[in-house]
Amino acid sequence: MDIQKYIDGILNRDVRSTSRTISLIENQDSMAVEILKGLYKHTGHARIIGITGPPGAGKSTLTDKVVKELRTRGFRVGIIAIDPTSPFTGGAILGDRIRMQELSVDPGVFIRSMGTRGQLGGLSKATLSAVKVLDAYGCDYIFIETVGVGQSEVDIMKLAETVVLVMIPGMGDDIQAIKAGIMEIGDIFDINKCDRDGADRLAIEIEMMLDLKGHFEFWRPPILRTQASIGKGISELVDNIDNHIKSLEESGLLRERRLNNIKVEVENILMGELTKKVHQVAKESGLLDEYANKILEKETDPFTVSEIILSKI
Amino acid sequence: MDIQKYIDGILNRDVRSTSRTISLIENQDSMAVEILKGLYKHTGHARIIGITGPPGAGKSTLTDKVVKELRTRGFRVGIIAIDPTSPFTGGAILGDRIRMQELSVDPGVFIRSMGTRGQLGGLSKATLSAVKVLDAYGCDYIFIETVGVGQSEVDIMKLAETVVLVMIPGMGDDIQAIKAGIMEIGDIFDINKCDRDGADRLAIEIEMMLDLKGHFEFWRPPILRTQASIGKGISELVDNIDNHIKSLEESGLLRERRLNNIKVEVENILMGELTKKVHQVAKESGLLDEYANKILEKETDPFTVSEIILSKI
Repeated sequence: MDIQKYIDGILNRDVRSTSRTISLIENQDSMAVEILKGLYKHTGHARIIGITGPPGAGKSTLTDKVVKELRTRGFRVGIIAIDPTSPFTGGAILGDRIRMQELSVDPGVFIRSMGTRGQLGGLSKATLSAVKVLDAYGCDYIFIETVGVGQSEVDIMKLAETVVLVMIPGMGDDIQAIKAGIMEIGDIFDINKCDRDGADRLAIEIEMMLDLKGHFEFWRPPILRTQASIGKGISELVDNIDNHIKSLEESGLLRERRLNNIKVEVENILMGELTKKVHQVAKESGLLDEYANKILEKETDPFTVSEIILSKI
Repeated sequence: MDIQKYIDGILNRDVRSTSRTISLIENQDSMAVEILKGLYKHTGHARIIGITGPPGAGKSTLTDKVVKELRTRGFRVGIIAIDPTSPFTGGAILGDRIRMQELSVDPGVFIRSMGTRGQLGGLSKATLSAVKVLDAYGCDYIFIETVGVGQSEVDIMKLAETVVLVMIPGMGDDIQAIKAGIMEIGDIFDINKCDRDGADRLAIEIEMMLDLKGHFEFWRPPILRTQASIGKGISELVDNIDNHIKSLEESGLLRERRLNNIKVEVENILMGELTKKVHQVAKESGLLDEYANKILEKETDPFTVSEIILSKI
């Protein structure tokens, strides 16, 4: 298939072209760039929602329920599930197999799981590209769902226009750290499994943190409660997502977020190109191997070697 | 203080020089590079142990108990606790305040918490530099402890020579994904809180995954059980860490891992330099701002803009 056929396929809502393009993106195939260039002017319609929170918070179930609610409201939805990935095999693990079953029979939902390929910043770059594809494919809402709470998850959440931070009551001290770490990227806080002990306490803690954060000019993150497994609170969560989108538009912040995302995107592409260059000059030439041995023998140090290699780029 | 004073201070086990050098590293102060250059030939003595696993697994308590055990065996120990960090404030949150109390009165233990500063790969670069400082400072063992299970944690764990993967029984489906994601970097599996229901099942699951992984030429990761809170199993864990180190040395894999780390280090430094260059050319010049607006208006796309900027670097 040539590039134009992929582009036409995606714009005509062909699942296979869309799915294969995302695979090309993951494999860093040079064709992917050409397809994305062609799609670019057809993007910008979709709302990008991030769903994140610690393991065990029930994010997948929550996302599924939110998506079903949006389907009953008549919208087309995409889900990109970011899976923690083996640094060796590079494959995405969960996602498709388990979840496809129920939602995949619905042609208005496109689900895809993505994993990292081990490169620096590679996942957030690939995720953003996949978002563009699903945007051009015609999704009204695109959900990016991450398992985990590290820096890479924060980076990915920065791609979203609305971030839902999912937490559950009673997870101990580590959760305190997590909350502090990703607190500031949450536009909506959701206490899932809210029937559990400690929900009130958690809500108070979040309120206190928000108070400490201080001034909210356009939007103070609401603290919601859900029990995703039985569908409780889902409709309210969807309403709040829409309210946040409206607030972003009216305040002019949506334009600002999008401009910022564009800058990040350009920088990611630039860094990707430079990384390739470094690989060529340092690795393929054998220069890095040669100097690594010298460094190990303490004949030189990594900073001096970097300067030498840099002078050759 | 000038550079040589810092270097001498660290080599003479002065806590203040050591601590301030790590701050210089975190702040990306250009002095840090000069100090690290001077320290480089005094490094290579310490063993680098990574401790990772999902939130709530009890990693801090486990690390503290392991460190105490190593202290009774007469070793000097460093701990670098990687904290999830606010992408806005950039500060490390936990660590010092809570844990310093007990261990910090012991001059044979150096504890430091580090947080990301928001840049790509920045944390693993800073962590590696801090490891070098503690190595030169005279630590026999250096522990790198991460909260979380994302790609950045995996990257950091690759800096370690021995990785202890801490898990606890009964954490549900997300944990399955986590296990699969970081499984392959574990040299030792530790089931902490092993008095809980599901410890046997977890041990069987890990065994099965190891079997699937297949062939282990030099070292099959052992599956240990601890109850860190009461000190149970700690001595055995320390013995296993030492056994792994011995196995690495005897098989020649230690040299290989170190060579590999050196290459990663050189690449990190190179990428850091190139990132600075990109910032200069794209941001400080205002070029990125100008083109971001054009991209938003769909007059051009990020790929074309990257090519333009790249041609100016």
